Amino acid sequence: MNVELVSIGDELLLGYTIDTNATFFARAAAELGIRVVRRSTVGDTAGEIADAVREALDRTGGVITSGGLGPTADDLTKASIAELFDRGLALDEGIWEALQARWKARKWPGEIPLANRTQALVPVGATVLTNRHGSAPGIWLEDPEGRWVAMLPGVPREFRGMTTDELLPRLTARMAATGASGLVVRSRTLRTTGIAESAIADALGKLSKDPMGVALAFLPGWEGVDLRLTVTDLPAEVADAQLEIAANALRARVGPWIYGEDETDLAGLVLDALRAMHRRAAVAESCTGGMLGMRLSAIPGSSDVFAGGIISYDNEVKVRHLGVRESTLRAHGAVSEETAREMATGARTRLGVDVGIGVTGIAGPSGGTPEKPVGTVWVAVDVLGNVQASRISSVGDRAEVRQRGTQAALALLLRALETR
Amino acid sequence: MNVELVSIGDELLLGYTIDTNATFFARAAAELGIRVVRRSTVGDTAGEIADAVREALDRTGGVITSGGLGPTADDLTKASIAELFDRGLALDEGIWEALQARWKARKWPGEIPLANRTQALVPVGATVLTNRHGSAPGIWLEDPEGRWVAMLPGVPREFRGMTTDELLPRLTARMAATGASGLVVRSRTLRTTGIAESAIADALGKLSKDPMGVALAFLPGWEGVDLRLTVTDLPAEVADAQLEIAANALRARVGPWIYGEDETDLAGLVLDALRAMHRRAAVAESCTGGMLGMRLSAIPGSSDVFAGGIISYDNEVKVRHLGVRESTLRAHGAVSEETAREMATGARTRLGVDVGIGVTGIAGPSGGTPEKPVGTVWVAVDVLGNVQASRISSVGDRAEVRQRGTQAALALLLRALETR
Repeated sequence: MNVELVSIGDELLLGYTIDTNATFFARAAAELGIRVVRRSTVGDTAGEIADAVREALDRTGGVITSGGLGPTADDLTKASIAELFDRGLALDEGIWEALQARWKARKWPGEIPLANRTQALVPVGATVLTNRHGSAPGIWLEDPEGRWVAMLPGVPREFRGMTTDELLPRLTARMAATGASGLVVRSRTLRTTGIAESAIADALGKLSKDPMGVALAFLPGWEGVDLRLTVTDLPAEVADAQLEIAANALRARVGPWIYGEDETDLAGLVLDALRAMHRRAAVAESCTGGMLGMRLSAIPGSSDVFAGGIISYDNEVKVRHLGVRESTLRAHGAVSEETAREMATGARTRLGVDVGIGVTGIAGPSGGTPEKPVGTVWVAVDVLGNVQASRISSVGDRAEVRQRGTQAALALLLRALETR
Repeated sequence: MNVELVSIGDELLLGYTIDTNATFFARAAAELGIRVVRRSTVGDTAGEIADAVREALDRTGGVITSGGLGPTADDLTKASIAELFDRGLALDEGIWEALQARWKARKWPGEIPLANRTQALVPVGATVLTNRHGSAPGIWLEDPEGRWVAMLPGVPREFRGMTTDELLPRLTARMAATGASGLVVRSRTLRTTGIAESAIADALGKLSKDPMGVALAFLPGWEGVDLRLTVTDLPAEVADAQLEIAANALRARVGPWIYGEDETDLAGLVLDALRAMHRRAAVAESCTGGMLGMRLSAIPGSSDVFAGGIISYDNEVKVRHLGVRESTLRAHGAVSEETAREMATGARTRLGVDVGIGVTGIAGPSGGTPEKPVGTVWVAVDVLGNVQASRISSVGDRAEVRQRGTQAALALLLRALETR
């Protein structure tokens, strides 16, 4: 099945917003054998929207739009596409009631604004796609020849949720009905951390180019280097088997650095390991300022093994709340192995848990010295009194130094827990 | 001047790569008064590339392509566009020599691969655009009617460098020659928080549609709703004056919710306010788990006014490290105004600073009750013993509840500091 995407919004066209919706849809659709053959982006102009959708319909017969469904005057998607299909707009009572209920639930002051009423307008004969992630419902509009447009909101969380909940099941059913299914694009991503991209390439040798006939992409980021394997235009079972063979070949070479696959989050693995051992953890953060706690608490249900911690941005907080010795700070400095170790131990003992994690570093842009340049981060973990530490040197901006430091602390803890 | 962008590459179409080139070009071009009226993305298929470029040329007469200029078999841009312009390809000796020199300089083993020779092929009659950032040169191709295509490489560093070095100067000169110069696109963004999109629309009334003849976009996100004003095709001074008038009109209606303009970060404003008052702050975080500390410490130089804080994810940490009373937790629960207030005060007194900020809430997805549904967050600030609190009800996932809670805490503190 071939489809096109039309992304709508001046902010996309002007470059103020990066279009992650189109990216999300293309990846999810490829998994089902739906091919996006073209993507277009137009501004909030009725004529441009109608032109782009009409041209896309002429090429493929199926179009997904994102954006332009909000309550304000610059939201023109529904009206311009309804006109293209020669349909009027009518108020949908169900949507209007849901919008009013939503307004009440949020406890905003006053009555629901009249502007919201336009969100309840639906082209005559269209199907409403339920939005469980926001206020603007989606619309499915189809003409007698079977040409269709699915209109989704532009807010990424809503677009993604509705693609998963509503759109993909509908397209899958449609393909099954027309017998258009079969060949798929499949990919698997092996996630590494703690090893450089070029070191992986060296370790892989010839395998770094199309291992076992499967396309391989190196995707470096602050979490580490992801290795993406992709096969295209194969029956699903053949694709999966090829990916399995290629993944095993990579694991044989760089297995120790692989911590998971696809969307695996290192923080989730750490929480799982703690849970399996019935141990609880706390953090002591300096340069990361709370990022490590944020990562751990981002995962639902983390409270059973994550107690909290101390953000010891100031040295006085390190001394008073974590028990770091003033002599240690004087002798070795706040960014040192010794301080990181005492922070980890302080987090463990002061919060009365089994595991402490300490992070201290120079996030920049200033504050570096020849011995401790910007990007120097010490991480330490204390597991029941057994302390380990590790130093990382990041090249990158302040945000990246903090992200890499956080990731390194999680990696060190996971290894320490696994080897116990 | 109107132009279109055509981005070329299977990786873009499949969603493995996000198209930052188009975004970069659109922003840079708008500043010069060049308007991108549509962006299209097609795969590495000769027919698709030619179709997209031909259609875009028919609409605007000027097209910039990115991608498909590499040395491998899937790089089809030059060949398909040369065919569209009815031109052959010929070897450019200058490019070929430069490629050979580049190969030698990089000290790759062996002779330069023949595949690189295709990079030295140029459509007959085309102008070569020098690439000082990589190996693939760009191409400018123009027909007798003055319709043109500029082909740039897809590697972001190369695309950006060549846009700046080669393309924008050329387009500027072209506009000057055709008398189309002098008109610009300018925008200003007013950032609001704590008010719903539709409530802003109501407060603005008729102004919500093109205030003072200036285009207005509503951009809702977890930080709040941004209001972007944009004027197009005006001389720079007129554009700036119109924006000023429109911005003032919006400020008159929704001023209390506006915290800044453009890229302003609420955390930065809070740090500035603290600095101006010579006050230091600390945080006490429950549901946000460190996110508030992370926001404050993300800004370089924050350490002079941000001391750190306590991540009291566990109730025991609230009691032991923040001095929240057990009777308060029993009577009102961990998510309550009373607990938030005691957390703020605990952060202030326990860390020995002037200002404490407390956040406690139900981030979900579970843990909600009818009285306190998921998304309920209490924030409190204690400024020298003067405590204020505020409740927010977010609809959204765990990440969004935490982000909105963090933002609300910063907004409450900023207001408390400003009104002192």
